[in-house]
Amino acid sequence: MTYGIIGTGAVGGFYGGVLAHGGKDVHFLFHSEYEAARERGLIVKSVNGDFTVYPINAYNSTEQMPKCDVIIVSLKTCAQKLLAGMLKPILKEDSAVILIQNGLGMEPELAAQLPKTVTVAGGMAFICSNRIGPAMIHHLDLGKVSIGVHSGPVDKVKAFCQDMNSCGVECEYIENLYEFRWKKLVWNIPYNGMTVVLDTTTDYLMKNPASRVLIIDLLKEVQKGAEASGVHVPDAYIQQMIDLTDNMTPYKPSMRLDFDNRRPMEIEYMYRRPLEEARAHGVDLPKIAMLADQLQFIQDQYLKK
Amino acid sequence: MTYGIIGTGAVGGFYGGVLAHGGKDVHFLFHSEYEAARERGLIVKSVNGDFTVYPINAYNSTEQMPKCDVIIVSLKTCAQKLLAGMLKPILKEDSAVILIQNGLGMEPELAAQLPKTVTVAGGMAFICSNRIGPAMIHHLDLGKVSIGVHSGPVDKVKAFCQDMNSCGVECEYIENLYEFRWKKLVWNIPYNGMTVVLDTTTDYLMKNPASRVLIIDLLKEVQKGAEASGVHVPDAYIQQMIDLTDNMTPYKPSMRLDFDNRRPMEIEYMYRRPLEEARAHGVDLPKIAMLADQLQFIQDQYLKK
Repeated sequence: MTYGIIGTGAVGGFYGGVLAHGGKDVHFLFHSEYEAARERGLIVKSVNGDFTVYPINAYNSTEQMPKCDVIIVSLKTCAQKLLAGMLKPILKEDSAVILIQNGLGMEPELAAQLPKTVTVAGGMAFICSNRIGPAMIHHLDLGKVSIGVHSGPVDKVKAFCQDMNSCGVECEYIENLYEFRWKKLVWNIPYNGMTVVLDTTTDYLMKNPASRVLIIDLLKEVQKGAEASGVHVPDAYIQQMIDLTDNMTPYKPSMRLDFDNRRPMEIEYMYRRPLEEARAHGVDLPKIAMLADQLQFIQDQYLKK
Repeated sequence: MTYGIIGTGAVGGFYGGVLAHGGKDVHFLFHSEYEAARERGLIVKSVNGDFTVYPINAYNSTEQMPKCDVIIVSLKTCAQKLLAGMLKPILKEDSAVILIQNGLGMEPELAAQLPKTVTVAGGMAFICSNRIGPAMIHHLDLGKVSIGVHSGPVDKVKAFCQDMNSCGVECEYIENLYEFRWKKLVWNIPYNGMTVVLDTTTDYLMKNPASRVLIIDLLKEVQKGAEASGVHVPDAYIQQMIDLTDNMTPYKPSMRLDFDNRRPMEIEYMYRRPLEEARAHGVDLPKIAMLADQLQFIQDQYLKK
C-alpha cells in the first residue's frame, strides 16, 4: 500500500513519520518546509524514541505525487474548499481518504465531491505533538487514533489500522464516526473558543467561578446539540471532560495557537457546522453561536490587517 | 433647598456644577480630587459655556457635610453596598435621594435600607461628559436627564427638576422609572460588555457582520427580559438603538473606560440584576448571561493582580 500525507504538520508528520520509519511506502506533502525536508529529512523527537525519515518522499504539490492507496489529510479545515481539487492527482479509483481533522461535516462534504468508489473516512487523534521547526516535530504524549468510515469500502481503512498498530501506534477502527465527531466536539467547542476570546489557558477557565459556570453551560450545549442530532452523550461523559481538564497541565488548544500566530481559525467546521446540524434538528445553541460570532469578529480584525 | 452631590465625577460634577453656578446651595463630595477642588474649585468646560465653581463647598467625607434636601448619587454602582451608610449623615427625615446610575434594582435595594419617609428616585442622564483632570470636567454634548420616583413623596424631586430647568439643563419628570431603567439597558447591556470582551469600539461592532448579528441578538434578549418583566419595548425602539449606534461617532461606553483603566466594572447592576429579574419572570437570557460571565472573568484577572 502507498500512503499519502496531505499536510505534514504536528499530526500528519507524526503518523506519516511512524509509518515511513516502520518501512511503509509514504509520500509527504509539504508547503513552506519542503526544502528543509528534502535536505535533511523529517525529524521526529518522540517520547517513544527519536527518529528521522531520510531520505524522504517529499513533494510541494500533489501534481508531483504518485497516486496513493490511503491518503491521510491532516490539514486544518480552513481551506477545505480546495481539498477535493488537491486530492484529484493522487486518487486511485479505490483510494481511501482519511480526514484527521477537527469539526463536523467534513466527510459528507468531501464524499459529495469525489467518485463513489473512493472511501471517505474520518479520524480523531488523541495526541500531544507540536511542530518545533521546519519538518521537525515534537511528540510529547499519547498518540492513539480512532478511525471510522463515512462512505465506501472499509478494507483499506482497516488495513491502515493494522499498519499503524504494527508500527507501534494504537489505531482503533470505530463503527460510528458521526458519534465520535460529536463527542470530540464536546471538549473542543468550549475550550478552543474560550481560550481565544478570553485570551487565557484551560486552567484559568476552570479555576475562575464565572468562566467555570460558562464552560459547563457550553459543554451542556454541545451535549444538547449532539442529542438533538441523535447522538447520546451521557452526563458522565460531560463530567469526565470537566475532570480531565481540571487535572490537565495548563493547556492552549489548537485554536488558541492559531490565534497567537494570527492564522485563520477553524470556526466553520468546529462551530458553524455543529450549529447548523443542531438547528436542522430544531435546536438552538445560543452560547455556542455567540462564541462563534465573537471568534469571527476577532479573526476578521487580525486577518484584514 | 440644599443639594448634596455624592460622587463629583463627569456626571455629578456637571449637574451639581450647573446648579451651583445657577446660585443654588450645593455641597460636593470628592475623594482623591478633594484638594484640587478646594484650591481652585470645580472647573466645567462646557459646550454651553465654561464656568468654575469657586469657592466651593467641598468635602471628602459625608460626615463633614450638612444634611441635604436633595441628594444626587452619581457614583458607579461598584460599591453600592456602602451607599446607605455613606448617606446616613446627610439625610433629613424627608430628603430625596436621586440615583443617577446605570443598571437595574438600585432603588428598591436602597429604599429597603432607608426610612420610609425618605424619597428614593432614579435618574437617567443622556450626556457626553468626561473627567479631564482633578475636579475638571469636559461637557461635550447633550445633557438631558429623566427622573422618576421609586418610593416616597414626589415634591422634592419635582422641585429639583424645576431648579435644573431654571439653571438651563433639561430635566424631565417621568412616571415610570422601572420602564425607563429597562429601556436604557437595551443599549447599555450589548454595547458596554461587547466593547470590553472584544476590546473594540461601537463602530467596529456595527460594521463587522458577525458582531452585528450578535449585537442585534443581545438587543433582542434585553427586549425579551423587559417584556417578561412587564415593560413593553417596541421593535421600533430596538431599530432606533441600531440606527443611533450606526450613526454615532466611534464610542467607548463607560464600562470600556473602566476596563481600560482597570477599574471595577458595573457587572452586578447592569447584568446580574436584569438577568435575575428576567429569571424571576421565567425567562433565561443566555447570551447576556454569557457576556456577564466573560466580563466577570476578565475583571477577576486584572483586579486580582
